[in-house]
Amino acid sequence: MKRIVLLRHGQSTWNKENRFTGWTDVDLTQEGVAEAVRAGELLRDEGFTFGKAYTSYLKRAVKTLDCVLDKLDEAWIPVEKSWRLNEKHYGMLQGLNKSETAEKYGEEQVHVWRRSYDVAPDPLPEDDPRNPRFDVRYACVPDAELPRTESLEQTIARILPYWHCVVFPSLMRYDSLLVVAHGNSLRGVIKHLKGIPDDRIAALNLPTAVPYVFEFDDALRLVRDYYLGDPEEIRRRAEAVARQGSAR
Amino acid sequence: MKRIVLLRHGQSTWNKENRFTGWTDVDLTQEGVAEAVRAGELLRDEGFTFGKAYTSYLKRAVKTLDCVLDKLDEAWIPVEKSWRLNEKHYGMLQGLNKSETAEKYGEEQVHVWRRSYDVAPDPLPEDDPRNPRFDVRYACVPDAELPRTESLEQTIARILPYWHCVVFPSLMRYDSLLVVAHGNSLRGVIKHLKGIPDDRIAALNLPTAVPYVFEFDDALRLVRDYYLGDPEEIRRRAEAVARQGSAR
Repeated sequence: MKRIVLLRHGQSTWNKENRFTGWTDVDLTQEGVAEAVRAGELLRDEGFTFGKAYTSYLKRAVKTLDCVLDKLDEAWIPVEKSWRLNEKHYGMLQGLNKSETAEKYGEEQVHVWRRSYDVAPDPLPEDDPRNPRFDVRYACVPDAELPRTESLEQTIARILPYWHCVVFPSLMRYDSLLVVAHGNSLRGVIKHLKGIPDDRIAALNLPTAVPYVFEFDDALRLVRDYYLGDPEEIRRRAEAVARQGSAR
Repeated sequence: MKRIVLLRHGQSTWNKENRFTGWTDVDLTQEGVAEAVRAGELLRDEGFTFGKAYTSYLKRAVKTLDCVLDKLDEAWIPVEKSWRLNEKHYGMLQGLNKSETAEKYGEEQVHVWRRSYDVAPDPLPEDDPRNPRFDVRYACVPDAELPRTESLEQTIARILPYWHCVVFPSLMRYDSLLVVAHGNSLRGVIKHLKGIPDDRIAALNLPTAVPYVFEFDDALRLVRDYYLGDPEEIRRRAEAVARQGSAR
């Protein structure tokens, strides 16, 4: 049996401030570190081990992974980072408070920006300092592939080539993979793995730092998927994520 | 100008207890974490950035690297881990207290084990649970290449292929590399880079968590090497390392 565990990073400073983060490279809060540590302990207590781990270029994901590997005593395993696992790019919304944005544009518009499949926020202008073309870490990415904003559809479109060509085929070599990334980038992966239709993905709210296990048979067909941990706690966390777009 | 910075990990629990560590995967102490953080701040304040980092399979090195990259705000750069950067394998000495060993076998013998070029401690027996052949992390290493003990000469012999084929040529792609490893594995690298003769390497004591900078010209010829930081502090730290083999 082969396994992939998806893990959304722990609480970040901008999760806490309820701001649109996207590609902004904010740190974990103390609570976020504690969440990551608990996720690591949970995986360890359930006997999980990993052959390789993948994460994004964003430190809230990298550090969550580091905490988990520490608890698993697997700091030695190979880790590959890719910008393609970054969070959905939120364009001009990056840095804005979600509740204030809801007051200004209406809850419905915010819900569309956060959860619609094919609507992207306004793009960052070319000379905006937040534009990823100014960030040294993306210097090796062809400019035409670097987003200035993204719909979820576009996020998925840049993740899937990496998923198909790098992450998923490494299951042929390793029995178990860990992927630590972001709410929306992981929604894209889950949509793909479970074949969720475009109009149903808005309803999926991924709780932070809860390991989501996908099991595959030897032909790498998905056999079953489940969250690890207390179901009631997981439900509360998913609902908290869904509520973030409300105007207070 | 191209640069490689070598960094020995911060204080580990067995550095503190003055025990032979080798391949034993002990953690950093709080002081070791603080040392790593200071090394990161020093590199940051001196304007260092890195294209790629290399480290061993041992958590005291991996975690030192994580602390440094955090301070540099470079958690996103690629990190490659290799067993070939592990500390010298100390064979049957692993776990023994250095001072007690000096009382039992004499300071001179301990100095020979610690600092001679071609003398290895007695090897671990095949059925010893400390034998690396039982450790899952080395499952992909051909058994004939896995040490049961090592002289410094043998340590260097297993590091240099990785240095020649992986670490050093990556200077062609990246301007600056960071290598976080161990007292003896880094002595091997330094011996190679500086062309230090076999009978002179015993005198080199590498202080913990002090960045050691090697600069190369465009043809990758070594131009200059220096420690980063306060020279008096560095001298004290190197002397403390040299004293560890004394009987109290």
